[in-house]
Amino acid sequence: MTTDQLITQIRKKQSFLCIGLDVDLNKIPKHLLKEEDPIFAFNKAIIDATHHLCVAYKPNTAFYEAYGIKGWQALEKTINYLNDNHPEIYTIADAKRGDIGNTSTMYAKAFFEDLGFDSVTVAPYMGKDSVEPFLAFKDKHTILLALTSNQGAFDFQTKTVDGVQLYKQVLETSKSWVNAENLMYVVGATKAEFLADIRKIIPNSFLLVPGVGAQGGNLQEVCKYGMNDSVGLLINSSRGIIYASQEENFAQAAADKSEELQQQMAAVLAI
Amino acid sequence: MTTDQLITQIRKKQSFLCIGLDVDLNKIPKHLLKEEDPIFAFNKAIIDATHHLCVAYKPNTAFYEAYGIKGWQALEKTINYLNDNHPEIYTIADAKRGDIGNTSTMYAKAFFEDLGFDSVTVAPYMGKDSVEPFLAFKDKHTILLALTSNQGAFDFQTKTVDGVQLYKQVLETSKSWVNAENLMYVVGATKAEFLADIRKIIPNSFLLVPGVGAQGGNLQEVCKYGMNDSVGLLINSSRGIIYASQEENFAQAAADKSEELQQQMAAVLAI
Repeated sequence: MTTDQLITQIRKKQSFLCIGLDVDLNKIPKHLLKEEDPIFAFNKAIIDATHHLCVAYKPNTAFYEAYGIKGWQALEKTINYLNDNHPEIYTIADAKRGDIGNTSTMYAKAFFEDLGFDSVTVAPYMGKDSVEPFLAFKDKHTILLALTSNQGAFDFQTKTVDGVQLYKQVLETSKSWVNAENLMYVVGATKAEFLADIRKIIPNSFLLVPGVGAQGGNLQEVCKYGMNDSVGLLINSSRGIIYASQEENFAQAAADKSEELQQQMAAVLAI
Repeated sequence: MTTDQLITQIRKKQSFLCIGLDVDLNKIPKHLLKEEDPIFAFNKAIIDATHHLCVAYKPNTAFYEAYGIKGWQALEKTINYLNDNHPEIYTIADAKRGDIGNTSTMYAKAFFEDLGFDSVTVAPYMGKDSVEPFLAFKDKHTILLALTSNQGAFDFQTKTVDGVQLYKQVLETSKSWVNAENLMYVVGATKAEFLADIRKIIPNSFLLVPGVGAQGGNLQEVCKYGMNDSVGLLINSSRGIIYASQEENFAQAAADKSEELQQQMAAVLAI
């Protein structure tokens, strides 16, 4: 999917909501455990109930790998279900990969070609030649970790490197990489006030913002500092939506929670 | 496996060689493509021919993920084959993972418990709470990326952060994490002279050193600057060994290449 197609969907649905499909078998409703593939059954129900309220889904690959082959199959079924039934939905493999050049190409092929995701999250520590293999794929986005939403972000990301903080150095440096127009960035919502500075460095890029809801971030704050003329934001909520209820009504509860966020987003877009 | 058990194996085999199982179907001998599982058939032949010459195997997960479910199955068969037939061999999942706390726990379970690897490589960018979930597993090692062997290492890792280079900051900071005794570090062989400084910060830790051979690193240089009283080194070679020949004699060629490195290591250990 191109950036323009994503923006069109955001305008149409009046939503820049991304729903994180982080499926934990200990947290999904008990009755689903009887299904042949409980993870996919859960995802399908969530997608069926919420696809009109969001523009993107983001499975975190860790939750699938943790269940081995069965987990990997559930991930494959989920992305196929999305691509077959909702091709207008933007898909993000939250994999946080990154390796030396030829190896990053293998990861890129796995997520972009074999699984057919629109984008994948990538860690910046190994630098240019670990990220450019992802950027080489046309109409696919590479979402680079810049400032994450966890406490450990302050261990290295906010340390001062040659006069500027490391995450700003990552933003600045990445702009010079080949096919940098295919970059988006992860910026945690728990640090909304950082967004003003970030926008000075990358005014036009899309930001994937985790941490709204369960991790304490505030939607209005994020929009105030992070939105640009093309919206430029994908706000992710995972646990706050998919585990809104752990009873049989879980899909409806997820839809209710999604609609609440979508309404807040529509209000912001109307200003 | 404990660190002491690994050291015992190194002394016994007179080898600190790790063989990277980075299987690319475009590079393995053509006759193997007729096998039901060419990746596992290749790995099994390499392991059968080389297990007495090395102390560790390191599959890079990218090469398995690139083949989807079949790749994941081949990885599972490979680690099971190693654990069943060669429990004295140290195993490394070269996965370069790292995510927020509860998600890192999912990755750790996947690699340590479900697949049964002895260790996994982890990226440091997200800090303490992204790494400690891995460190919590008893008798398992977390191998943190410090200084990688690619050109992009100079983009951020060697930049000066609050007075010291980022990779040194990573080494220093990680020493204070809970269960830090379960840490090892990735340090690229292409920068052997950096090892003297690294040893000042982490004199006792094991270092996993990629980049000997195909990437241009020199074994003697690495040993000169990086070895400690407990050896403290695992030297990895991937392509240089497993693709020594792409003909029917590939396993023997891999064994010959491994023996060459093992003999050089035995000579260093004898000094």
